Amino acid sequence: MPELRKDPVTSRWVIIATERGKRPSDFGAEPERKRTGFCPFCPGNENKTPPEVLAYRTGGGAPNGSGWHVRVVPNKFPALQIEGEGNRQGDGMYDKMNGIGAHEVVIETPEHGETLASMSERRVEDVLWAFRDRILDLKKDQRFRYILVFKNHGEAAGASLEHPHSQLIATPIIPKRVHEELEGAKEYYNYKERCVFCDIIRQEVNQGVRLISENEDFVALAPFAARFPFETWILPRAHDPFFEDAQKHEYVSLSKITRELLLRIEKVLTNPPYNLMIHNSPLRETDGRHYHWHIEVLPKLTRVAGFEWGSGFYINPTPPEDAAKFLRDAKV
Amino acid sequence: MPELRKDPVTSRWVIIATERGKRPSDFGAEPERKRTGFCPFCPGNENKTPPEVLAYRTGGGAPNGSGWHVRVVPNKFPALQIEGEGNRQGDGMYDKMNGIGAHEVVIETPEHGETLASMSERRVEDVLWAFRDRILDLKKDQRFRYILVFKNHGEAAGASLEHPHSQLIATPIIPKRVHEELEGAKEYYNYKERCVFCDIIRQEVNQGVRLISENEDFVALAPFAARFPFETWILPRAHDPFFEDAQKHEYVSLSKITRELLLRIEKVLTNPPYNLMIHNSPLRETDGRHYHWHIEVLPKLTRVAGFEWGSGFYINPTPPEDAAKFLRDAKV
Repeated sequence: MPELRKDPVTSRWVIIATERGKRPSDFGAEPERKRTGFCPFCPGNENKTPPEVLAYRTGGGAPNGSGWHVRVVPNKFPALQIEGEGNRQGDGMYDKMNGIGAHEVVIETPEHGETLASMSERRVEDVLWAFRDRILDLKKDQRFRYILVFKNHGEAAGASLEHPHSQLIATPIIPKRVHEELEGAKEYYNYKERCVFCDIIRQEVNQGVRLISENEDFVALAPFAARFPFETWILPRAHDPFFEDAQKHEYVSLSKITRELLLRIEKVLTNPPYNLMIHNSPLRETDGRHYHWHIEVLPKLTRVAGFEWGSGFYINPTPPEDAAKFLRDAKV
Repeated sequence: MPELRKDPVTSRWVIIATERGKRPSDFGAEPERKRTGFCPFCPGNENKTPPEVLAYRTGGGAPNGSGWHVRVVPNKFPALQIEGEGNRQGDGMYDKMNGIGAHEVVIETPEHGETLASMSERRVEDVLWAFRDRILDLKKDQRFRYILVFKNHGEAAGASLEHPHSQLIATPIIPKRVHEELEGAKEYYNYKERCVFCDIIRQEVNQGVRLISENEDFVALAPFAARFPFETWILPRAHDPFFEDAQKHEYVSLSKITRELLLRIEKVLTNPPYNLMIHNSPLRETDGRHYHWHIEVLPKLTRVAGFEWGSGFYINPTPPEDAAKFLRDAKV
């Protein structure tokens, strides 16, 4: 069972893998796929993953067989374990608990060589529906307080398998970064009686200099205080705390703007590695007025170094206005 | 002039390079030294750096000539600019200010091929004295509120030059990560009426499982809630908020334990890239009872990916108890 431990200074929780802990010689080893050429996510290899928890099969077909176009399976090497209770306890001055949670993989397409940018809008939309369906299902489990949906694209962004996939981790605590955003949004709301994200959208659409693209339901922009070069956010125009509560037409619009944004990034930056995260409200403990779900895309172009680790202060070598212009002007 | 911008949600400041902003084609280009083989930090090339602000020359010699064994120069491409005033202002809902600050490079040795681990203790001690002397000098400038001393070792840790060096950045605001640590330490103090770091040292010395080494003035340990595999901290036994106020005998002890810890890391992990940061109190606004300066060393063995960026929640594949044992048992 992995262990959750809390740093007594910053109250940041970490997940410590207590079983099969990595030894010094395990770092820097080649990932398995490079050695074997085998892909467990390709059709025909369904029995190489744990049994699926969800799949969309337009033409029908049996579970764990082929014919799917989106397939969700538990992670074979989960960061958190689904069975058990939290069992919070002390260890002298420290706090810890069992590493319970869910860790699932959303296999976005049967095609090994595709990307979210090259897939059809309809297929990208189905990936969004899969995120929604899994969030709604896991939300029923009262042990979980937060679900993070994220995607690592490319080895430098942390992807250990090439086949297009996203991940979903349900945690028994509210992560620090999420808590910070919630608190910040709440503070702004308490002062202004307006949602900070709604205000951002209003100013950005008005100024236009950091806007990348927009459609009827969403805007894509480079944030004013971007930490990384070409960092981009996608925000729904309508205030909504929960991704999973979006309207059907919003998933259609979101698939369009997401696919298009990733295509712009792929073009301008020559298919860079990136991380994509859905910033969502906690499952239950939230006041819907403060928070506004959105997506953040972080291309991995620079290295996070000592200054950033020591200060939490980022140095961004590309002004977001320049990044927005490059992305906006890309022919897609 | 670089610009400091504040994220309206999380209140995190970032440094935006507004001049010579990096374009898409600038990322992934080979660093200059690889192309030219030239090192501006080697003796004989003193005129290739801005004029020195400090140097130790045991045998004497003129400024900006050879004969030095530690040399501090302004960074030729500073993240923040030394001249000017903050000039805080709004931009609609956003906040920004001029990117003023200091950015200096501490060239740790004239020998291009050495490392802090291979240098003599006496030479490592001189590097610490240089940190102290520069902090004390920059502290006089009332525009600055924090100074971060850090080191990037190896290209994957963000070092753009190979020649052993550290950096020092003075900022006109207190960075978010520092603020978080200070607030956390304060909260603990208010509840317990004891310093959280003093308590950590007490429990770790007592339990021993995460202890790596110790001497009369310092302990080196793997923290209970380590974010990264083989993350290690060096803490002074005596409570002190300021690195620059340490006693002479403490710099001697610190040079010993630091050099030895880096040697252990080099041995166990085969000279890994790493970041080293001095976590220090803000220059003035601090209540000395809460905070306890220390050093953090983060070997770069894993990639920070979507889950970490989206949640601030780290997955550490090596229990700190295992990491401590490997490092403790290393023959140095």
